[in-house]
Amino acid sequence: TEVFDKDLYETNDLAGVVTGLAWTPVGGDILFIESLLSRGKGGVTLSGQLGDVMKESALTALSYLRAHSDEYGIDYRIFDNYHLHIHVPAGAVPKDGPSAGITMTTSIASALTQRKVKPHLAMTGEVTLRGKVLPVGGIKEKILAAKRAGIKEIILCNKNKKDIEEITPAYIADLTFHYVDHVDEVLKIALLPEKVSKPIDFVFPEEKKENVLV
Amino acid sequence: TEVFDKDLYETNDLAGVVTGLAWTPVGGDILFIESLLSRGKGGVTLSGQLGDVMKESALTALSYLRAHSDEYGIDYRIFDNYHLHIHVPAGAVPKDGPSAGITMTTSIASALTQRKVKPHLAMTGEVTLRGKVLPVGGIKEKILAAKRAGIKEIILCNKNKKDIEEITPAYIADLTFHYVDHVDEVLKIALLPEKVSKPIDFVFPEEKKENVLV
Amino acid sequence: TEVFDKDLYETNDLAGVVTGLAWTPVGGDILFIESLLSRGKGGVTLSGQLGDVMKESALTALSYLRAHSDEYGIDYRIFDNYHLHIHVPAGAVPKDGPSAGITMTTSIASALTQRKVKPHLAMTGEVTLRGKVLPVGGIKEKILAAKRAGIKEIILCNKNKKDIEEITPAYIADLTFHYVDHVDEVLKIALLPEKVSKPIDFVFPEEKKENVLV
Amino acid sequence: TEVFDKDLYETNDLAGVVTGLAWTPVGGDILFIESLLSRGKGGVTLSGQLGDVMKESALTALSYLRAHSDEYGIDYRIFDNYHLHIHVPAGAVPKDGPSAGITMTTSIASALTQRKVKPHLAMTGEVTLRGKVLPVGGIKEKILAAKRAGIKEIILCNKNKKDIEEITPAYIADLTFHYVDHVDEVLKIALLPEKVSKPIDFVFPEEKKENVLV
Amino acid sequence: TEVFDKDLYETNDLAGVVTGLAWTPVGGDILFIESLLSRGKGGVTLSGQLGDVMKESALTALSYLRAHSDEYGIDYRIFDNYHLHIHVPAGAVPKDGPSAGITMTTSIASALTQRKVKPHLAMTGEVTLRGKVLPVGGIKEKILAAKRAGIKEIILCNKNKKDIEEITPAYIADLTFHYVDHVDEVLKIALLPEKVSKPIDFVFPEEKKENVLV
Amino acid sequence: TEVFDKDLYETNDLAGVVTGLAWTPVGGDILFIESLLSRGKGGVTLSGQLGDVMKESALTALSYLRAHSDEYGIDYRIFDNYHLHIHVPAGAVPKDGPSAGITMTTSIASALTQRKVKPHLAMTGEVTLRGKVLPVGGIKEKILAAKRAGIKEIILCNKNKKDIEEITPAYIADLTFHYVDHVDEVLKIALLPEKVSKPIDFVFPEEKKENVLV
Ligand SMILES: [Ca+2]
Ligand SMILES: [Ca+2]
Ligand SMILES: [Ca+2]
Ligand SMILES: [Ca+2]
Ligand SMILES: [Ca+2]
Ligand SMILES: [Ca+2]
Ligand SMILES: [Ca+2]
Ligand SMILES: [Ca+2]
Ligand SMILES: [Ca+2]
Ligand SMILES: [Ca+2]
Ligand SMILES: [Ca+2]
Ligand SMILES: [Ca+2]
Repeated sequence: TEVFDKDLYETNDLAGVVTGLAWTPVGGDILFIESLLSRGKGGVTLSGQLGDVMKESALTALSYLRAHSDEYGIDYRIFDNYHLHIHVPAGAVPKDGPSAGITMTTSIASALTQRKVKPHLAMTGEVTLRGKVLPVGGIKEKILAAKRAGIKEIILCNKNKKDIEEITPAYIADLTFHYVDHVDEVLKIALLPEKVSKPIDFVFPEEKKENVLV
Repeated sequence: TEVFDKDLYETNDLAGVVTGLAWTPVGGDILFIESLLSRGKGGVTLSGQLGDVMKESALTALSYLRAHSDEYGIDYRIFDNYHLHIHVPAGAVPKDGPSAGITMTTSIASALTQRKVKPHLAMTGEVTLRGKVLPVGGIKEKILAAKRAGIKEIILCNKNKKDIEEITPAYIADLTFHYVDHVDEVLKIALLPEKVSKPIDFVFPEEKKENVLV
Repeated sequence: TEVFDKDLYETNDLAGVVTGLAWTPVGGDILFIESLLSRGKGGVTLSGQLGDVMKESALTALSYLRAHSDEYGIDYRIFDNYHLHIHVPAGAVPKDGPSAGITMTTSIASALTQRKVKPHLAMTGEVTLRGKVLPVGGIKEKILAAKRAGIKEIILCNKNKKDIEEITPAYIADLTFHYVDHVDEVLKIALLPEKVSKPIDFVFPEEKKENVLV
Repeated sequence: TEVFDKDLYETNDLAGVVTGLAWTPVGGDILFIESLLSRGKGGVTLSGQLGDVMKESALTALSYLRAHSDEYGIDYRIFDNYHLHIHVPAGAVPKDGPSAGITMTTSIASALTQRKVKPHLAMTGEVTLRGKVLPVGGIKEKILAAKRAGIKEIILCNKNKKDIEEITPAYIADLTFHYVDHVDEVLKIALLPEKVSKPIDFVFPEEKKENVLV
Repeated sequence: TEVFDKDLYETNDLAGVVTGLAWTPVGGDILFIESLLSRGKGGVTLSGQLGDVMKESALTALSYLRAHSDEYGIDYRIFDNYHLHIHVPAGAVPKDGPSAGITMTTSIASALTQRKVKPHLAMTGEVTLRGKVLPVGGIKEKILAAKRAGIKEIILCNKNKKDIEEITPAYIADLTFHYVDHVDEVLKIALLPEKVSKPIDFVFPEEKKENVLV
Repeated sequence: TEVFDKDLYETNDLAGVVTGLAWTPVGGDILFIESLLSRGKGGVTLSGQLGDVMKESALTALSYLRAHSDEYGIDYRIFDNYHLHIHVPAGAVPKDGPSAGITMTTSIASALTQRKVKPHLAMTGEVTLRGKVLPVGGIKEKILAAKRAGIKEIILCNKNKKDIEEITPAYIADLTFHYVDHVDEVLKIALLPEKVSKPIDFVFPEEKKENVLV
């Protein structure tokens, strides 16, 4: 039979689009986090019928990257001179929970650096403000959904390793797992060194300076 | 008998007015998205008793166009110096759902470019922040409503092709269908190259510059 | 017996006051839309216990006039340098619905132009953002209320003509009906060319200019 | 027995304090509207557990005075450079309704002009944005409360005259009634020409001017 | 047995901390109002699970002091250049009602003037915007709580005198009562002339001035 | 058996991360308060599904430190030029109550000073705006959770000493208790003199100065 979502065969030549894994009452599913920057004044728009916890998750990811912009080669002026919109399709499906934390961090980081995201990669894990990755639930269903969608590599919290060890090895033989403790490891794995083919050429207003009259 | 809505026989010499297709409990219907720019400070007003999902849909369409303004020949200064109002008549009928996504994108794009919209054209489809078009429901009822209203061409998501293939061919023989995957294709079809007869002559305040005293 | 509302015999020498027609569970009634400008920063206050739909109706009317200010000889600087308050007495009666759309447009337009409103005139009709006038309900009851209050002329949507044709001709022999499709026609009928006797003398702050030092 | 509220015997040497008449489920009562200006940026604070209708009533009164500041000798700069607080004691009693409209207008006008309010005067009446005074209910109970509190003069809407005519003349022989149609008449009666003994000496920041370099 | 709250034996060498008296369903209690200023832009934070009426009470106290800053030797620039936080411990106990009005006024006044508050003093009374003190309930229970906590002097509204006269004289022999009509009397009693040992040294940004070029 | 939370064995070389003790319906638990500063305009973000009381607790802690910045060697310009985000993992667990007050104060203080937090230390206690530490409940369960997580030292309010005295001495022999009355004592104990290895190098925009033309 046909693969459920053809989405994964699309190009990865678009900054800010990252694949996450979701648990739903009817099984696991993949989801996409889309982050997009446009010239603006530093605001943030969240859409996709996100619940409170998921909104906080997005703001936490953003604060982490803002505080660590130097380490990731992000020009801090972007935060004040561009508008960030984070959307999670499909637009009518309510979504909540903290497990998209590392996916959101990766999506925003890709938008801010304009670096490509590794193809055929998915991830799931909560992230705290200091970058610590926390384990999440529904791992088995999520792995199933990932396989169905053609995913090859998966990033999980180290503390979720035990959930993988309970799955029949043959079933996941063609999947590569990355276990992490910190979101820094996530970004090292997920963000490729090269930029997308049409990266944003960030522009900033001239910094205001005082008149100097001599 | 008389055609239900005479609205479609009106001129298309007005930027920002695009025909969408809606599903309602009592059958399909056409609806109009109206986008209007006036001098202002970059705010957005949404009216027509729009629900959460539809409001997010409008903001997502706007962010897409804002981030891709260069590609569509849109002066980015419009976003900060004009106010955008999006209205969906009739004003007292509550409306919701993501399926007006591509209609909203086209409506805003027409307002921003002041280009005419192709006449006798209707469309329905969700759009994500990266411009991907997603399939929507109620296709059969929507096609019925479009015919009744004198529509000649319809834009749908590629994944909705199968819904059209289930309709008796003779019934839709006089309709042209455009199947798309990306909102960029939608705009290529829907926006005519010529501008409306009285396009807005966009004006911007002088950019602030620093005194240079020598 | 005495005429129900003596309000109509008042002078029309006040900008921004326009008579509308309302449907209520106990019959039709006339209502007044009052628009008032005062020096400010461009904000809008709505009062009179207006519901969501009626508030959106006011904002839509305002956006229409803002976008078309040139056509009506309105100085666009008013929108940023004056505060607009729209009130609908009586203050304790909740009101909702889109049918005051053309009345609100006329009221705001009269305030912005300081032109007199035609006396003994009432109107009812929804208006969309592109200025299209839509039909409304309760026509019969509204006409009754208008007669009772001494109204001589009534503006209605063309599509409401059929509702008037169902009323016994003798009953409405002393009323003149204007059927319109666009709010532009409404304003042509409702706004007299002369200004009120004490029109606001609009003042604006000096436009900011850059120092030019040579 | 003792008079219920000794409040009325207090001095009227305080700008912004005006006596209103309220209807409550347990009979009429007097209430005080207190308006106070302090240096600020033009904001408004409303307190005293005011309901929606009463809050709108305050904003309508304020807009009226703002638009007509010239006629009352009010420096329009006060509106942007002072903060207006309107409080209605007692602070824990919920209050609502439009009937304090003329009382609020008088209170704000007294604060803005620093003129004394006529002593032993009370009033009740709705006011619209164009200054029209509308009749209100509970007149009988309100008059009773006014007498009990030592009030000598009362301002009412002309249309409330009939409510007074239903009261036994002997009972109200010691009260003077002023019937009005417009808030302008209210202010003429209620505001004395002299200022309070310690009027605010309004100060304004220097108006910003452009550099003029020659 | 031990005194319930040792809090009162603490130093009064801290500006902004004032003791109030509260009525609760299980008896009277003392409470503390804490006001603290820090450099900022004039905002106000209220905390301690305060209800609507108590929040309005705080804003009314603030407006009173702001309008009368000259009389109390308060530099009006503090209001725009410092942030005021008012907290009422314990943080998890919901509190409401207007009876902390004079306590809040005293607390804010002490913070603004950095003057010490008289030790072993408690107070309870509503205050209106013009500074009038209104009587409050639960006096008996409040006096009991005050005695238990070691309070020596109590400020009450003149109209609450009758409540004290109903208490057995011997029981309150060691308490001094101050009956007041106006918050000005409260501040005269409660604020000592000397400042706290480490008063805030208020600093203000240079006032902006226009360039004068000759 | 394995220790419940390995989190405590992590480095303390991260500013702003402090261990608190929480009471839950199923027993005590440790929690982490994470404070993070990034360049911004002085705003505050709170996340972790915090309830009203806990949010107020965070704002109270912040106001205390802002008002006392001099005493702790905090550059007051940080408050206006950096954004503070406070997060309490796990992100999906609702949390409320005032008992994290001293933990929040310590966390924010560590972020503001970039000083290390003492390792193997936990704390619980409400804090008021004047810095007074108040006792909290659930002490027994919290101590149990602290032991299980490898905590060595615990800070409590002096008034909670009696709760500790009710625990079998042998059980808590390996724990050191610090009893305090003021948050100043908490910070003296919890903040080590040395800074984290990669402290933020705070930068501030040039202070605006007036042109001086001679
Ligand atoms: Ca799917
Ligand atoms: Ca929630
Ligand atoms: Ca239709
Ligand atoms: Ca919804
Ligand atoms: Ca009427
Ligand atoms: Ca509604
Ligand atoms: Ca009374
Ligand atoms: Ca209400
Ligand atoms: Ca107590
Ligand atoms: Ca309440
Ligand atoms: Ca735990
Ligand atoms: Ca709560």
